[in-house]
Amino acid sequence: MSGRLIGLGTGPGDPELLTLKAVRALGEAHVVAHFAKRGNASNARRIVQAHLRPDHVELPLLYPVTTESPKAESAYRDAIEGFYEVAAAQVAAHLRAGRTVAVLSEGDPLFYGSYMHLHVRLSGSHPTEVVPGVTAMSGCWSAVGHPITQGDDILTVLPGTLGEDELAHRLAGSEAAVVMKVGRNLPKIRRALALAGRLQDAFYVERGTMPEMAACRLCERGEEAAPYFSIVLVPGWRARA
Amino acid sequence: MSGRLIGLGTGPGDPELLTLKAVRALGEAHVVAHFAKRGNASNARRIVQAHLRPDHVELPLLYPVTTESPKAESAYRDAIEGFYEVAAAQVAAHLRAGRTVAVLSEGDPLFYGSYMHLHVRLSGSHPTEVVPGVTAMSGCWSAVGHPITQGDDILTVLPGTLGEDELAHRLAGSEAAVVMKVGRNLPKIRRALALAGRLQDAFYVERGTMPEMAACRLCERGEEAAPYFSIVLVPGWRARA
Repeated sequence: MSGRLIGLGTGPGDPELLTLKAVRALGEAHVVAHFAKRGNASNARRIVQAHLRPDHVELPLLYPVTTESPKAESAYRDAIEGFYEVAAAQVAAHLRAGRTVAVLSEGDPLFYGSYMHLHVRLSGSHPTEVVPGVTAMSGCWSAVGHPITQGDDILTVLPGTLGEDELAHRLAGSEAAVVMKVGRNLPKIRRALALAGRLQDAFYVERGTMPEMAACRLCERGEEAAPYFSIVLVPGWRARA
Repeated sequence: MSGRLIGLGTGPGDPELLTLKAVRALGEAHVVAHFAKRGNASNARRIVQAHLRPDHVELPLLYPVTTESPKAESAYRDAIEGFYEVAAAQVAAHLRAGRTVAVLSEGDPLFYGSYMHLHVRLSGSHPTEVVPGVTAMSGCWSAVGHPITQGDDILTVLPGTLGEDELAHRLAGSEAAVVMKVGRNLPKIRRALALAGRLQDAFYVERGTMPEMAACRLCERGEEAAPYFSIVLVPGWRARA
């Protein structure tokens, strides 16, 4: 009898933004797996820490590389594919032994999450459940209190890794936008927003919903480096009056 | 002393997808407000029902119209603006009396939610907190188990109320897409997907995460009417192998 695979969304950072279902799934899990950079604690693990028990088997899955490289770099691709193969094999061994494995995923598991690399390898052969989570972007726009979309607004979610012209084109063509994976891409994102005529509308949020959250209008922010998990919001709906 | 305004995201439908924070906020609220069509029970209220107490004051906010009309129709606009003015005044009266008011919002309050019409009218003059929720789209793609975006994918969220050509143009230009507000727009959305060459990739989900959920490939679905709160998903990331 195979154990159950659970892709478990932890929400954006505030431990209170876990769902009741996520808490129940942690209670039912024998194994709790979490992705992290080598040498760094898993942020997802920190979010669920209060729900971990001494008898939970923890399975850290440590990325072989520390920064994301362009898709086309085949050495990076090979390393990361090999890593996901090994991670899937580790999780599969627990599933075959009948253990329920919760794979933690910050935000929502199937929205830019590492969990999906295990999902596509394992969900065809093991009972699988995905517990959705509050996304980082929802956490950020709620924390700053800016309505993002209403009525017929289009929302475009853009990775900050895109080229400047592509970003500017997309930002100009959408009522509302969210730029993810900001980090060292921030100067480029700022130029793209200016090109699109949207710089005055944009908000910068880092570590949204966490105690150390920082947020401001992007045009009022200095040029200092931004953490990778910061977000830029371009609300589509202007507050009335 | 003003009471506190809480925009409370209930998540997509499964009561277990409430966050711990939403449950705490319901516990702290004196008044629970919910939007509904006249004659219909509020779906958001149904989601939180197990957390309602006999001493909660309920404030139903009943829309004056039953179907959404094009933005430009001024009679519709006037009626709905007047409705939000009255609703805000009703909530403000409770806040001025020192009561904490939780305004329920299906999914996430600031993402196409009616709550934001109260937020912009009241958050400037009353202490306000927004509790983000799991969006309907996250609930849907998790329920069907299809990864939606990875890496450099762009996600575009489109209201089904847009014109056919606009929908087709947007669907062709984005790795991943979600079409909201499907309902009677489904035949048009289907034609737009076909024009964009994406019909084979699309999934139809109605009442996602609820016991009566139905989901299938859109191209395998008949022409029967779809409920308003159904969703079309176009995953951006193909399962490997």
